[in-house]
Amino acid sequence: MDQLDDMATGAAVLGTGGGGDPYIGKLLAREALRDRPPLTMLSFDELDDDDFVILGGAGGAPTVGVEKLPSGHELVHAFRTLETHFGKKFTAVMSPEAGGINSMIPISLAAAVGLPLVDGDIMGRAFPEIQMAIPTLWGITATPMAMADEKGNAIILDTISNRWTEVMARSLIVQMGAVTHATNFPMTGAQVKQAAISGTMTLIGQIGRAIREAREQHRDPIAAATAITGGHELWRGKIADVDRRTVGGFARGAARIVGTGAYADHTLQLDFQNEFLAARVGDEMLATTPDLITVLDAETGEPITTENLRYGFRVAVLGIPCDPRWRSEGGIALAGPRYFGYDVPYIPVEERLAASPLTR
Amino acid sequence: MDQLDDMATGAAVLGTGGGGDPYIGKLLAREALRDRPPLTMLSFDELDDDDFVILGGAGGAPTVGVEKLPSGHELVHAFRTLETHFGKKFTAVMSPEAGGINSMIPISLAAAVGLPLVDGDIMGRAFPEIQMAIPTLWGITATPMAMADEKGNAIILDTISNRWTEVMARSLIVQMGAVTHATNFPMTGAQVKQAAISGTMTLIGQIGRAIREAREQHRDPIAAATAITGGHELWRGKIADVDRRTVGGFARGAARIVGTGAYADHTLQLDFQNEFLAARVGDEMLATTPDLITVLDAETGEPITTENLRYGFRVAVLGIPCDPRWRSEGGIALAGPRYFGYDVPYIPVEERLAASPLTR
Repeated sequence: MDQLDDMATGAAVLGTGGGGDPYIGKLLAREALRDRPPLTMLSFDELDDDDFVILGGAGGAPTVGVEKLPSGHELVHAFRTLETHFGKKFTAVMSPEAGGINSMIPISLAAAVGLPLVDGDIMGRAFPEIQMAIPTLWGITATPMAMADEKGNAIILDTISNRWTEVMARSLIVQMGAVTHATNFPMTGAQVKQAAISGTMTLIGQIGRAIREAREQHRDPIAAATAITGGHELWRGKIADVDRRTVGGFARGAARIVGTGAYADHTLQLDFQNEFLAARVGDEMLATTPDLITVLDAETGEPITTENLRYGFRVAVLGIPCDPRWRSEGGIALAGPRYFGYDVPYIPVEERLAASPLTR
Repeated sequence: MDQLDDMATGAAVLGTGGGGDPYIGKLLAREALRDRPPLTMLSFDELDDDDFVILGGAGGAPTVGVEKLPSGHELVHAFRTLETHFGKKFTAVMSPEAGGINSMIPISLAAAVGLPLVDGDIMGRAFPEIQMAIPTLWGITATPMAMADEKGNAIILDTISNRWTEVMARSLIVQMGAVTHATNFPMTGAQVKQAAISGTMTLIGQIGRAIREAREQHRDPIAAATAITGGHELWRGKIADVDRRTVGGFARGAARIVGTGAYADHTLQLDFQNEFLAARVGDEMLATTPDLITVLDAETGEPITTENLRYGFRVAVLGIPCDPRWRSEGGIALAGPRYFGYDVPYIPVEERLAASPLTR
């Protein structure tokens, strides 16, 4: 089933290293679709203003996510818990992020509960924290939100801000074993049209297909990926070192990539907190969040998530401009480099590259 | 209003050092009763089997509780959150523990929401963890449970066991600032009659009055306290040292009490995790949880909670037999010394004292 394979690949490209292993998400989605009627995908145009849309996905440390595999029941449990709490039926499911497992898991949720899937998400990429979502910029709350673990525990959060949701949920994620499943950001159709990103599921399929076709047709899959995403090649090289730890419900660390070819004699450092946050050579930033930084296998164009980074891999690193709403003052405050502790302003990746002596 | 004063004193005696400062609880109760109709107290006999009873109280580290004072709105928020979640009205309020602030707070909750207060609790003392309650022995769950903080955040837990409730709630307490307010153990009237402890509110008033009257009549208030509680004098002495830290949402530590009079030449060590867990002289245990260990001012008979222990205080230490249900195999497994890491069997305090060379 090429379509799910392509979507999983494209999701991992936009997942910017995070969002969990798309392979696992693909298996879940495939399993959920088996012996069920085909999934209905709704474009934003097809949404009614009074539709009641719920987002569903996994949260936690992807390093643990690859070992503690979801059954799919956890997310259905979170969905039912929230529906019961509202005393009202949801009418559609949407993905919380364009990234890895969390673009695939909503497919399995929609299939399992028999609802259509909205063709969109709320980040246009993956981000590590719950408040980092376009609806936050519009004052839309992530709660009521339900979390459920594989043991059968469920929790409903109703907080005063999306930042508090993150604080509470992260603490629970740690107790729930570093990975959990959640339904959140309940929105009307009108709110989705206002504050979500349209066409994500279609886009990830297109990205995956472009990379696959380039590979099949013996063209450069990296060039295909930059073309379809509007991204820029930041680096090519060999992974020399990965420093990774699972702390506070996140996978945190850095990878060092020794340049090859045109990038020889320099080393790129990629920092991550689930997702890649910054790409730098010495003190020079090549790209920072909220722009997307993605690592691809240089040969095949397959995206490599942070938990799968290994010594010796030959990779290309892309910088992809984020959704323009992330470049607003509010967007930069929410997910820009300073939030993550970098004492640098946000400068769009294309401007950084144009000014850099290191890259062409 | 002597009645509330007496109840606060008696609650702190059964609070075994924990349960929070009863003075704060008394002020809250007094404030809530002002300008409201008098509170109705229901005995277990007056409960209908299909009454719907909810427990309400504070949780966290008493060391923080004396600095972060509750407004009372937090607990009403937790109450309303849970009632909305059930879609069903509660018919009565009950205290979660016979201890400090948590015997007084339910009075303020009952007054604020206009419901009768059940004359009982579920521990017959105070305990630091949620699962340590008689209903746990009967398979009655603490959830659905609602927690609310002073900022306006609310959370509903629905877990697979009362131990998991404790794990999740403790982690949230830390995020909520080491003290929070919760409604839990929703029970029918029939369940209350089966698995709760009857007459707690009456008893704490009687204990407080006995101590006060002894003081007023220049009798020994310590003797009055042992008589009314069925307890035993374990120690008299002067506090030499208090080691106390707020960790993991608990107040943990130990106090050393140098013996005076008949106890001279020995030092008693009292360990606590919110509540006193063990009283020992060297390797010899004089009393352990689940029996109650209580510190009283030797002069006035006023109970001293762990966060109020100070160098130089002259105190008497009582050991009070716990409710017989705590002495069952299940009760000892839930709250006996081994649970708290002591490698000793539970031996009832009266048996320990009879066998001790140290005390008469």
